[in-house]
Amino acid sequence: MNPLQRKDLEFHWHPAVHMKSLEKYPPFVVRRASGCFIEGIDGRKVIDGISSWWCKSLGHNHPRLKAALIEQVSQFEHVIGATTTNETIIALSEKLVKLFPGMSKAFYAGDGSSAIEIALKMSLHSRINRGEHKRTKFLALAQGYHGETCGALSVSHLETFKSVYSPILFDCIVLQGIPYLNGSSDPLWNDCSAYWDSIEETLEKNSDSVTALILEPIVQGAGNMRMYSQDFLGKLRAWTKAHNIHLIADEIMTGLGRTGKMFACEHAKITPDFICLSKGLTSGWVPFSAVLTTNDIYDCFYDAAPAQMNPGKETFYHSHTYTGNVLGARLALETLTILSNDFNWSLLDEKASYMLRSLYDVAHETDVLTNIRGIGMIAAADIKDHLYTFEKMEKMIHAAFQGGALLRPLGKTIYWLPPLIIENPEIDHLREITKRALLSVF
Amino acid sequence: MNPLQRKDLEFHWHPAVHMKSLEKYPPFVVRRASGCFIEGIDGRKVIDGISSWWCKSLGHNHPRLKAALIEQVSQFEHVIGATTTNETIIALSEKLVKLFPGMSKAFYAGDGSSAIEIALKMSLHSRINRGEHKRTKFLALAQGYHGETCGALSVSHLETFKSVYSPILFDCIVLQGIPYLNGSSDPLWNDCSAYWDSIEETLEKNSDSVTALILEPIVQGAGNMRMYSQDFLGKLRAWTKAHNIHLIADEIMTGLGRTGKMFACEHAKITPDFICLSKGLTSGWVPFSAVLTTNDIYDCFYDAAPAQMNPGKETFYHSHTYTGNVLGARLALETLTILSNDFNWSLLDEKASYMLRSLYDVAHETDVLTNIRGIGMIAAADIKDHLYTFEKMEKMIHAAFQGGALLRPLGKTIYWLPPLIIENPEIDHLREITKRALLSVF
Repeated sequence: MNPLQRKDLEFHWHPAVHMKSLEKYPPFVVRRASGCFIEGIDGRKVIDGISSWWCKSLGHNHPRLKAALIEQVSQFEHVIGATTTNETIIALSEKLVKLFPGMSKAFYAGDGSSAIEIALKMSLHSRINRGEHKRTKFLALAQGYHGETCGALSVSHLETFKSVYSPILFDCIVLQGIPYLNGSSDPLWNDCSAYWDSIEETLEKNSDSVTALILEPIVQGAGNMRMYSQDFLGKLRAWTKAHNIHLIADEIMTGLGRTGKMFACEHAKITPDFICLSKGLTSGWVPFSAVLTTNDIYDCFYDAAPAQMNPGKETFYHSHTYTGNVLGARLALETLTILSNDFNWSLLDEKASYMLRSLYDVAHETDVLTNIRGIGMIAAADIKDHLYTFEKMEKMIHAAFQGGALLRPLGKTIYWLPPLIIENPEIDHLREITKRALLSVF
Repeated sequence: MNPLQRKDLEFHWHPAVHMKSLEKYPPFVVRRASGCFIEGIDGRKVIDGISSWWCKSLGHNHPRLKAALIEQVSQFEHVIGATTTNETIIALSEKLVKLFPGMSKAFYAGDGSSAIEIALKMSLHSRINRGEHKRTKFLALAQGYHGETCGALSVSHLETFKSVYSPILFDCIVLQGIPYLNGSSDPLWNDCSAYWDSIEETLEKNSDSVTALILEPIVQGAGNMRMYSQDFLGKLRAWTKAHNIHLIADEIMTGLGRTGKMFACEHAKITPDFICLSKGLTSGWVPFSAVLTTNDIYDCFYDAAPAQMNPGKETFYHSHTYTGNVLGARLALETLTILSNDFNWSLLDEKASYMLRSLYDVAHETDVLTNIRGIGMIAAADIKDHLYTFEKMEKMIHAAFQGGALLRPLGKTIYWLPPLIIENPEIDHLREITKRALLSVF
């Protein structure tokens, strides 16, 4: 450990890691980053195989994003958003809304969790304003993850993140029996009828008490990069619509290109009632998130009686200090401009195929992987059950890092989720490092 | 309404305002901001009397913060914080921890709400790791406000923000009968014994089931800028310590100079178990927050059995994508450097007195204010009961804005909470505008 690392561990508590383990595998001291690579103070360059927790969609230190931020800073950086506006946030709002036909309004917050909390609260609040007082419950998918503030965690289903906190979480109805698959060539992709009956039974039981169903469309990120049928997503949307239940699409990881389309919902050609965006929205520069919703939801508030008749009902508070923060907004606007106007989507498809084939190669050459799967720029596989241990996986992560790749498996699942701008030689690099790390440990 | 304002209302849903009212009083279109002033595209300059929701402690577009941000951007802007570090976050962590003797570790998140959620979860989680399974409840003060994600909202007490969401909030024990006062010259400031017995009764009833007491030290912001006895805060700390209950100090608004000291806890010379910081931490540039805590709490996790023995227990997750975001960290480091090394604290005291006297002047000259109060750079007063209506207050806000000041009353309370760098002539400006606006309406 160098003196900086020692000082880090003395004062800085990192999330999602046992701090004792950082004594064995000390934190990497970053000096610089660019494109797909992170550089340490020791000059070592590491490829960011997970886009720094799935957010750096256009890679690190993109020159256009840098220029946009510096230009914005020359004017102003943040002014209260409740009763002011500016050209940047107006342009961003219009762009976001028009990017997803059917959406009408953009509401802003700081991170993914707060976007989720806002969608949950808006759904519930709209019911009260409409007099639908019985609709107070939420439905969610098994293995779902939506963040770690109490509301977001309550509708998540991964025990690792939530079991300890049950006294402060609310109950949520969980849908089991999801038609998982390994990619869009699986027949299940277009027809999940065989799975539907048992799902529909759970749905029907709760159809009068639920305000919204929340889900990550197509790919469940923290839930081990599980991928599921677009037909299932379509059926869920049809059922929720028929039963006056809102659909909240958590596109925080999947949105803005990750699954090969601008939004994962497009795979099933559906329009939800709420879309939550963050991570890739600023290409991972600063905390910034948006909730897109419909005029149908908006009007439940807009048309409500004014404040003195109806205190608190007509206004959606969630008075986040940084709502519409113009630095985040400027970065998001530039990110969306790049993705809409200057991005090669067909090349993205080719890269996605190349990346998935590369993971098949690793599986073939190491013989330690199973259940290889991929959609868009996500490729994942599981370590074979009889080979997996927690300690071995920890060693593998370290070996990959020493080899030059930042990976961060989820349980026994390893995955690649690199910046969308990655090029084939960089995929080769990631493949070789992953292969060597697996072979050295398993 | 100009075309930009019209487009804003078409696509952008603002928080904490009835959207219909923005048709009557359209959002101000910001072009630039500097120091205490915000400038519109129409060239109009407005003094930011509330520091843009209490965050712009060093004012808008501070040249040193701008330079620090641009320098950081030339290196890198954000890399996953779970297993990496960098010189900026290390320096910030050391500085934060040393700023408050007794604190040992800094944990990072994105906004004030998430800092609160983290403190709540850490407290509860530490109990489970220590086998104190009965301590699952939270205590909070009446009129408290801690944010609007479900956890933060559950421990808040303001009905306006929470009543609609009761189905998804957890119960919290509320302490009533707080010794409020109008400033530190009130005898209650140093002796609140007369209030203590009834408070202690509520405390004692719950002493075995509570994990933590959460409060805003000295000033309750959204709770109408109510100010209370430092002796009360001291007694609460003594009682919680004696009963093995954590104290969570929500210094999101009060911290980093706002009450005339670096932390409001210093008024009572207490050390809490958790301190939550945000808003002024980056001087309101980007969402960024920190939870400071003790090694006593940290060790509950550090010493826990490793993962396979004890899944999820030894690791504090809250795996916020942007934890330790280096842009926020760089801005926070520069803000703290300015406050620690280059800030005139005795001048701040003088300005605080001048500001409070100025509000007394307004009260005297308008005869519409009562209950004038102030601590540090917060001055507040209430519109006399018989004069107050919601519509009149809305008109007053508009009149002040037309006159050149951004104010944002809380119910019948008007307050000034300007950037700490405000100068006396700017206070005069704020005073005159406020006076004229009050006289024109009430």
